[in-house]
Amino acid sequence: MKPHTTKLRVRYAETDQMGVVHHSNYFVYFEMARIEYLRSLGLPYDWLEKEDIYLMVLEAYCKYKAPAHFDDILVVETSLSKLTSAQLGLSYRVFRDKDRQLVAEGSSVLVCVDENRKPRRIPDKLRNALSVEGVSLST
Amino acid sequence: MKPHTTKLRVRYAETDQMGVVHHSNYFVYFEMARIEYLRSLGLPYDWLEKEDIYLMVLEAYCKYKAPAHFDDILVVETSLSKLTSAQLGLSYRVFRDKDRQLVAEGSSVLVCVDENRKPRRIPDKLRNALSVEGVSLST
Amino acid sequence: MKPHTTKLRVRYAETDQMGVVHHSNYFVYFEMARIEYLRSLGLPYDWLEKEDIYLMVLEAYCKYKAPAHFDDILVVETSLSKLTSAQLGLSYRVFRDKDRQLVAEGSSVLVCVDENRKPRRIPDKLRNALSVEGVSLST
Amino acid sequence: MKPHTTKLRVRYAETDQMGVVHHSNYFVYFEMARIEYLRSLGLPYDWLEKEDIYLMVLEAYCKYKAPAHFDDILVVETSLSKLTSAQLGLSYRVFRDKDRQLVAEGSSVLVCVDENRKPRRIPDKLRNALSVEGVSLST
Repeated sequence: MKPHTTKLRVRYAETDQMGVVHHSNYFVYFEMARIEYLRSLGLPYDWLEKEDIYLMVLEAYCKYKAPAHFDDILVVETSLSKLTSAQLGLSYRVFRDKDRQLVAEGSSVLVCVDENRKPRRIPDKLRNALSVEGVSLST
Repeated sequence: MKPHTTKLRVRYAETDQMGVVHHSNYFVYFEMARIEYLRSLGLPYDWLEKEDIYLMVLEAYCKYKAPAHFDDILVVETSLSKLTSAQLGLSYRVFRDKDRQLVAEGSSVLVCVDENRKPRRIPDKLRNALSVEGVSLST
Repeated sequence: MKPHTTKLRVRYAETDQMGVVHHSNYFVYFEMARIEYLRSLGLPYDWLEKEDIYLMVLEAYCKYKAPAHFDDILVVETSLSKLTSAQLGLSYRVFRDKDRQLVAEGSSVLVCVDENRKPRRIPDKLRNALSVEGVSLST
Repeated sequence: MKPHTTKLRVRYAETDQMGVVHHSNYFVYFEMARIEYLRSLGLPYDWLEKEDIYLMVLEAYCKYKAPAHFDDILVVETSLSKLTSAQLGLSYRVFRDKDRQLVAEGSSVLVCVDENRKPRRIPDKLRNALSVEGVSLST
């Protein structure tokens, strides 16, 4: 199964005085990659919202492997790692485009909630779109 | 009339690869200073919200005079510069605390809106609290 | 003269609790657009850096015309508005891609400095690349 | 051993359209708390820099327990959890000040490097200041 990929270019405002991407930005990159991953499965954010589906971050983790610099093009690979009745786990790998250097690896756990932040079962359309991705269901 | 002052410490994440505070952060500093200024007038944000008063930014400007660095303590002076029936203008001066170096000057124009972003007259309590500050009313 | 255009998609992290793009982000968008504008003129950032050319923001301004929302694709139009011996002025217009709604207009003044933040004359290669853009030189 | 505590007030720009603090900001809060923790041990950032000591983030983790809102005062508790020859581990707990609600828990692993990002042994002054904190040394 090939992971989904998203490209982005490092912004000047994302660098810090060490001359590298500040580590907090990777969580923003992961979020962008997650949204593009869901869009690629036919689940754009506005559809999720219309269905009263909100994916709230429960846990976030990142391991930094090499610095990324201003103007670098980064490739974020996103894969589904877990799918339960109300949660999904995603993992991410960030590469520098020009030399395929691994820059960071991370993961997040998300819970499906409604507009009032009340946990709800992951709806079938979302579940089916995700599970064709080959992750075995555990409900 | 002494301007209201707010202190803040420059965060590492706010620096950029030039080793200085990235210019976009000053607009966040202005916003923090504005909120503290209103709090000092007896108008904390949760009261404004309860009264269905939202102050939406219409214009924002900053002139950069000297770089600020990580861990610097900055002092933001805020003054009311304009007050009309639905808008207020604020001006800001940012100093480095330790040497009183002027770092930046700026301004913003805000419009009073309700929850649905519809412009509304500035309510009397807000107007009165602001105008004791000595700016002549122009309605 | 057609302005240079850059597209970007609004990130979730850029929204605020009013449900719109926080006003400080537009200055980051302007910077991204400026860097792409220079790249399109054959002046990518790494070339500028190699030539010891840094463009430091002296002034920044934005006027907000309509809210932008998460996942919106925004188009930033960038044009040169001023060119002196050491400074350049740029102006920006931000449109929502899907309905061509004008979202914001802004401008910035930049000064050419060396690595030590000392002002320097805009080098000829940069000046020539900019001035073919049709702005009359005032040295 | 009482953990070190740092207070901060949630900024408007840190909220997202769910009306809560965007999850990426907690990593910025952890960094602020870490810097204040080191300052409280007599190790302010400018001293570290003078000694050519840079603490680079290798890993960062956060678990979100409850939403934080605009204008909330948050208390970040920081404790040392690991100390090896070149790395230190810190853990954080974030509480809302007014009701002591636990908002988030997290951790980070930092490596001691020099100006050129080359790993170096944690210098004795830093090691001693940290280890009085009661974490057993493992060199």
